[in-house]
Amino acid sequence: MSESNLIKPHGSGVLMPLLLSGQEKVDELKKAATLKKVVMSSRETGDLIMLGIGGFTPLKGFMGKDDWKSVCEEMKMTDGTFWPIPITLSNDEPIEAGMEICLISGETEEIMGTMKVTESYQIDKTFECEKVFATADNEHPGVKMVTAQKAWNIAGPVKVLSESYFPKEFEGIYQRPAESRKLFAEKGWRTIAALQLRNPMHRSHEYLAKIAIEVSDGLYIHQLVGKLKPGDIPADVRVKCINTLVKNYFNEDKVLMGGYPLDMRYAGPREGLLHGVFRQNFGCSHMIIGRDHAGVGDYYGPFDAQDAYHNLWEGALECKMLPIDWTFWDYGQGGMASMKTSPEKNKDQRLFLSGTKLRKLLSEGKLDEIPPEFSRPEVLEILKEYYASLEEKDKVEVKLHGHATGKAEVK
Amino acid sequence: MSESNLIKPHGSGVLMPLLLSGQEKVDELKKAATLKKVVMSSRETGDLIMLGIGGFTPLKGFMGKDDWKSVCEEMKMTDGTFWPIPITLSNDEPIEAGMEICLISGETEEIMGTMKVTESYQIDKTFECEKVFATADNEHPGVKMVTAQKAWNIAGPVKVLSESYFPKEFEGIYQRPAESRKLFAEKGWRTIAALQLRNPMHRSHEYLAKIAIEVSDGLYIHQLVGKLKPGDIPADVRVKCINTLVKNYFNEDKVLMGGYPLDMRYAGPREGLLHGVFRQNFGCSHMIIGRDHAGVGDYYGPFDAQDAYHNLWEGALECKMLPIDWTFWDYGQGGMASMKTSPEKNKDQRLFLSGTKLRKLLSEGKLDEIPPEFSRPEVLEILKEYYASLEEKDKVEVKLHGHATGKAEVK
Repeated sequence: MSESNLIKPHGSGVLMPLLLSGQEKVDELKKAATLKKVVMSSRETGDLIMLGIGGFTPLKGFMGKDDWKSVCEEMKMTDGTFWPIPITLSNDEPIEAGMEICLISGETEEIMGTMKVTESYQIDKTFECEKVFATADNEHPGVKMVTAQKAWNIAGPVKVLSESYFPKEFEGIYQRPAESRKLFAEKGWRTIAALQLRNPMHRSHEYLAKIAIEVSDGLYIHQLVGKLKPGDIPADVRVKCINTLVKNYFNEDKVLMGGYPLDMRYAGPREGLLHGVFRQNFGCSHMIIGRDHAGVGDYYGPFDAQDAYHNLWEGALECKMLPIDWTFWDYGQGGMASMKTSPEKNKDQRLFLSGTKLRKLLSEGKLDEIPPEFSRPEVLEILKEYYASLEEKDKVEVKLHGHATGKAEVK
Repeated sequence: MSESNLIKPHGSGVLMPLLLSGQEKVDELKKAATLKKVVMSSRETGDLIMLGIGGFTPLKGFMGKDDWKSVCEEMKMTDGTFWPIPITLSNDEPIEAGMEICLISGETEEIMGTMKVTESYQIDKTFECEKVFATADNEHPGVKMVTAQKAWNIAGPVKVLSESYFPKEFEGIYQRPAESRKLFAEKGWRTIAALQLRNPMHRSHEYLAKIAIEVSDGLYIHQLVGKLKPGDIPADVRVKCINTLVKNYFNEDKVLMGGYPLDMRYAGPREGLLHGVFRQNFGCSHMIIGRDHAGVGDYYGPFDAQDAYHNLWEGALECKMLPIDWTFWDYGQGGMASMKTSPEKNKDQRLFLSGTKLRKLLSEGKLDEIPPEFSRPEVLEILKEYYASLEEKDKVEVKLHGHATGKAEVK
């Protein structure tokens, strides 16, 4: 079936990948080596790669001040295109408009792309944070990223020259929008629900994934493979958990998986909206929005992201939300349910386990205390191994440390 | 919340109930008593009541030949309005155009309405059956109804004077479109999925109802309270089963129930479409279409009704289908699933129980052989009582019969 049955990319009829290839890339790389270098943060690098693969269609580069302000205030570009989060690049000093610069990954030091500077400007970071994160509290990991930005924002159209380590390190899971679209079309799917994942899939995720499958042609489990906050399960372990779960508990014919290179901003509702924007570019007609989507701590109400979708103006975003309530195992009916399907009389028979509690049980090796109604045993097994390996690593570190300080025994 | 958030009635911005009330009704009843009488079949009476309460908006009466033909052939009225099944009235002889007639229920002999005859015409019943039922086999209960129609169809706008015994016999469940719309609005619901039911709810129905709740504001369990084919569970028993199930296994806040007065035609895909048309009039944005919707025997493929929705032209029907695959308990994953969510490796772990097998087990009192994964115990208990009462009745009948024929013992 043709790709013409799929949802069109956001704000544009076609994908607009900015990644160069072939001779064009060779020439640009040669030129880049001669240009002034700007070192990008991890978040900025992820954003650049998304621009490169067309995940951020119709953006052509990093935003200028008018777009930045309009996006912060009204969630739209100055041309009216819906966009919920500023995509910006920072630098210690302003750069003259018209100048071409070379964009370097701070993490790998490789050349990632070039940009023709159109503007340098300074921003009110508190304003940005309050608009985007609804807080300026520097404990918020997204706020921390903005605070850590350098003094000037520099804007301009980009040419992207690398996808960094993502294609290799996440081989088989890293995917470009053109690839996911091709796969969806081959399957003959029209309605595809995207499941955002940055954690291993427990049964609550399994349940919402299955609801989505029941009402769509297929499910796209779309994992973040960029950076997370400390303590989150790393992408490779998560991928393993999800592969195992899908293999054992899903009709594999109805599931496709992919990974995207962004860092989590933890912007809650605004990030939930961004998730819809780029899922549309990947070809998804629906974005699953569950409880506390893209949230962190207590910064957002559990359904703020759903409200954000409900409050969008007509035509803002073609990719529709698939809102799902708080899900859990309901012992009273012997099955998964949500607040919408569990009877009030079963209110004491609902299995809740906070992420914090779960992590505690896992890290203490208390696997037996995690009920199978919360997580499939195959998934717990993988998590157990991961936490055991952490412990080993800790032991080694402590031992080394112990030799130096004599404190190993007391730790 | 206002009713303006609900889906608009079919083919018209507003409900068009044709039921008279107050003095207008008194006067019309007086006149009706003086008019030529036409006795209606059960199906025709149900159709008239639906016209009366606005369930068949925007129809104004029984169809004339051009509309009948166009509906059979193209599923649209001559004015272009989508309509999938002819709504016609038959009589032994033609009636002069312009004449007013009195419509009588053949079942209760009461005056149901009046009609101003615009046309009498004869039809090719085989043509109608092949178009509507995809068969002219007289074993098909819907075909049987058409075959039993009298020689002439008479058409014209109607005035409806009674809802017969439905409001009283099905008090608390019988509902008019204006009433369901009011209730939906009071709940603040916008997206409402209708669940068509003519059988008790087993877990497969429970599962699809819950999927619908998870993705909608609310569920409308809309039961047929008209006539069924022999052997089907009667409406009062079914209502009891469903009430019990909802009370014990649903969040009652997300469920509303209603009953409508039509007879089943068993027209499979075409009836599935009609279900969407009148559910839209009742205020539902979505119509759940599962396996073998409105089918009988082997006349239709299990997903023909879903295909019928997929094949509709743009704008035909505003009420959208919520298609659900074949659902069952999957022992391999310890939960309900469908063909879309059950892994291929679990193919021998799926619980299937045909309606025939189920009825056999129930009627033989073999309740223990029906697994709780198929039906909730509270529902089985009610069915058990019903079948036991049938048996008692049979015994009584047999006994009476035995006295007369001396064959009671051998039966």
